[in-house]
Amino acid sequence: MNLKPIFKPKSACVFGVSLKNPSFPGSIIYFKNRYEYHVNIMAINPKGGEIEGQQVYKSLEDLPEIPEIGILAIRAKNVPETFEKCANAGMKGAIIISGGFAEVGPAGKKLQDKLVSISKDHDMPFLGPNCIGVYSPPYIDTFILPSERISIPKSGGNIAMISQSGGILVDQFMQKFALRNIPISSAVSIGNKAIVDEITLLDYYSKDDQTKTILMYLESLQNGRKFLTEIERHRKYGKNLMVYKAGVTPAGARAALSHTAAITTSSDLVHFGLKQYGVIQPSSEFELISFSKVLNFDLPPIFQGNVVVLSVSGGHGVVCADACTKYGFNLVDLSSKKGQLREIINPSSKDIAALGNPIDLTGSVTDYDVEQVLEFLLKQNEVEAVILLLLPYPPQISMQIGRRISIIVRNYDKPCIVYLPWLERYQIIIDGLELNGIPVAHTIEEGVQMLKGLWQKSINIKIDEHYRKKK
Amino acid sequence: MNLKPIFKPKSACVFGVSLKNPSFPGSIIYFKNRYEYHVNIMAINPKGGEIEGQQVYKSLEDLPEIPEIGILAIRAKNVPETFEKCANAGMKGAIIISGGFAEVGPAGKKLQDKLVSISKDHDMPFLGPNCIGVYSPPYIDTFILPSERISIPKSGGNIAMISQSGGILVDQFMQKFALRNIPISSAVSIGNKAIVDEITLLDYYSKDDQTKTILMYLESLQNGRKFLTEIERHRKYGKNLMVYKAGVTPAGARAALSHTAAITTSSDLVHFGLKQYGVIQPSSEFELISFSKVLNFDLPPIFQGNVVVLSVSGGHGVVCADACTKYGFNLVDLSSKKGQLREIINPSSKDIAALGNPIDLTGSVTDYDVEQVLEFLLKQNEVEAVILLLLPYPPQISMQIGRRISIIVRNYDKPCIVYLPWLERYQIIIDGLELNGIPVAHTIEEGVQMLKGLWQKSINIKIDEHYRKKK
Repeated sequence: MNLKPIFKPKSACVFGVSLKNPSFPGSIIYFKNRYEYHVNIMAINPKGGEIEGQQVYKSLEDLPEIPEIGILAIRAKNVPETFEKCANAGMKGAIIISGGFAEVGPAGKKLQDKLVSISKDHDMPFLGPNCIGVYSPPYIDTFILPSERISIPKSGGNIAMISQSGGILVDQFMQKFALRNIPISSAVSIGNKAIVDEITLLDYYSKDDQTKTILMYLESLQNGRKFLTEIERHRKYGKNLMVYKAGVTPAGARAALSHTAAITTSSDLVHFGLKQYGVIQPSSEFELISFSKVLNFDLPPIFQGNVVVLSVSGGHGVVCADACTKYGFNLVDLSSKKGQLREIINPSSKDIAALGNPIDLTGSVTDYDVEQVLEFLLKQNEVEAVILLLLPYPPQISMQIGRRISIIVRNYDKPCIVYLPWLERYQIIIDGLELNGIPVAHTIEEGVQMLKGLWQKSINIKIDEHYRKKK
Repeated sequence: MNLKPIFKPKSACVFGVSLKNPSFPGSIIYFKNRYEYHVNIMAINPKGGEIEGQQVYKSLEDLPEIPEIGILAIRAKNVPETFEKCANAGMKGAIIISGGFAEVGPAGKKLQDKLVSISKDHDMPFLGPNCIGVYSPPYIDTFILPSERISIPKSGGNIAMISQSGGILVDQFMQKFALRNIPISSAVSIGNKAIVDEITLLDYYSKDDQTKTILMYLESLQNGRKFLTEIERHRKYGKNLMVYKAGVTPAGARAALSHTAAITTSSDLVHFGLKQYGVIQPSSEFELISFSKVLNFDLPPIFQGNVVVLSVSGGHGVVCADACTKYGFNLVDLSSKKGQLREIINPSSKDIAALGNPIDLTGSVTDYDVEQVLEFLLKQNEVEAVILLLLPYPPQISMQIGRRISIIVRNYDKPCIVYLPWLERYQIIIDGLELNGIPVAHTIEEGVQMLKGLWQKSINIKIDEHYRKKK
């Protein structure tokens, strides 16, 4: 199945552009792409005419050229006929935005079956129905929401998103990735996934050079066993695969059924199957963001879970120690290093600093203390990673601290994660860190979750070794 | 113990103002209060002289008047002598910022014991040592962090904060309360809590008219049984009491010991004791914010946990249904109401809307649909509360939707919680809701946590009934 025309079409036509209402899904898609994306887009409405100075064609036959793909945002009952016309005209793919198919009951299911059979007859893939299509800059964006209403993360990243819900994709993923400064490559909404499903897209993105991490929001797995087999088969491409499964409670599963006609496979079965193949499974929307963020940085994995918590606030150390324990980390015993540590700390915090693990440099900390202690810690063999809880409130912490820390961390092949209040006034520190390869967490727990993401990375390495030995 | 002089002093003097370094803790406190707060503040340094045009006094004896309280930000070893001078001069209280007491070991503990005995001899309360004091607008703010570096929530609220860690207070509470628009009344850091501890403050805030909710961050309870007895005794004041306990894992407990010399009482014992007396115990920093936010609104409690999820995105409905189940809520069965619901929905979403629970009005939703369906739900006897997942991305949702919803909710004595992406571009909707008494959650899970906060409220009512019957 060739999905390139759907992700990178040279030309497309939209069925369902309104002559009067610019808020119509088809109209939004048409104008958004006309002015913001590379695709050559054409509008179709049986009445023909003009909207905002642009020509509207009466039918497929009137178009100046046969476009690569068709975008259908018309009533469900009219979809099969139009889709068949597209197929007969030789188009390479379609995106079916319309709802009113399998998710509404037997009559809708019948309509959807028609689409499937047309698609198979013509070997023409389509996305949906009941979806919002693709966001694939700079080529095309069929999300039916006005650009000015949604938040879009930076493009050019290495994370691809696949979602069974358009709303979740736009609001929980793209919006939050934008807020947390995580760039993505592209995003796709699969809706009822009648033809193009998570397996098709796993294959597409596994072979895509730009993609390093594939992130999936799924409400169902039509065929859990096949999905697992395909995941095993695709391990050789070396992508990080992350699956966030919703509909895991009875109430959630019922909701999924009426949302995307999703019949959910047993959660436990899926969970353990995915785990066995190294698939990362966030347990909450927060973990999803944390894992995505840390995987976006090219950091070394954690193998044993031996970490140090370096703080400038004792309370943050306590809360972080609790969180490290909850996530299974071991706080390295530094009691034999107290003397050495005390020597490198400035006189006014020397006597009040707590030099266990967590280390608390207190509010009397200076930039230099942070640098010295951090470097000391990174040098210790038994320390695999450092989580630095850096409150920039103490007056002797400068706005250069981000860049200064990154210069040190660069010399050691160990991950350092920094928690910092995510405020605009501290953007200079955040950028000083992130532009230099150090991820910044915006809660203490997120920092620990990021460490967990790096720990998860080593599990994949171990699975690979296991496979190599078996051969 | 009279704490009024510490919270609302007319005058104060600061020991430890530097003549050269404006970043010194004493200097920061002096200048902050000199220009930003009502207290008449005076600077003391044995050398005397001037800083930035302000007179510095050589000693207590040189001051033009005896201030109500003394603020000590000098080396630990000099603290007892200075504190005793303050007591002898007739001051009413002190705030001891300095660290280097019980938290550093036996020598420090001895110094701290001296302070306790002076305090008892003179019946003069003090905060700390090893703390950042009070934030009590418009009277005084002894937080040793420059105002321009920290985020302060709106004042005039009804939540009082008590924290064993200054860093947690400033960064996890005040900063996040500011971000999430939760006003507070005052905040206090108790540090080693040698004299003024959680029990003293429970008493102070229980009798304070402005305070409706008392929020505590504790790393330890010196006397768990006494704390519980005092909580029982103070129930009659009708305040919400929330305790967030850190140091609950072995690693966390060790960190707490070196942070505030905190010896933690058994977590299970404390947990069940607190629960019995209706104390709200957030299980994470996220729950703490959610509970605080919802308690700040004067909403009716939830008794049975029967809720409806109203969404404009199917995926949000699924995720929220999972979260509702996780938190123990029951999604009311609306299957007999489908016909009635379908009648009140606009023609373009009528056929694609999912009318179970969750209800999904889809992206074709209009303001009017939300109003109609919400009102219908609030009218149903079996529905105790509605959580509305309102994505403002669909083009037919107007920027007036917040105010429009609030006009409906006002007529029913039932809570409605709204999830909305917390973005500046949607501030007009957020304010439309929050200024009219409807709390806005910034994650789906936060919305469900807010419902849990209201459920918790009913537990206190039940405990009160239980006590009345016993009498």
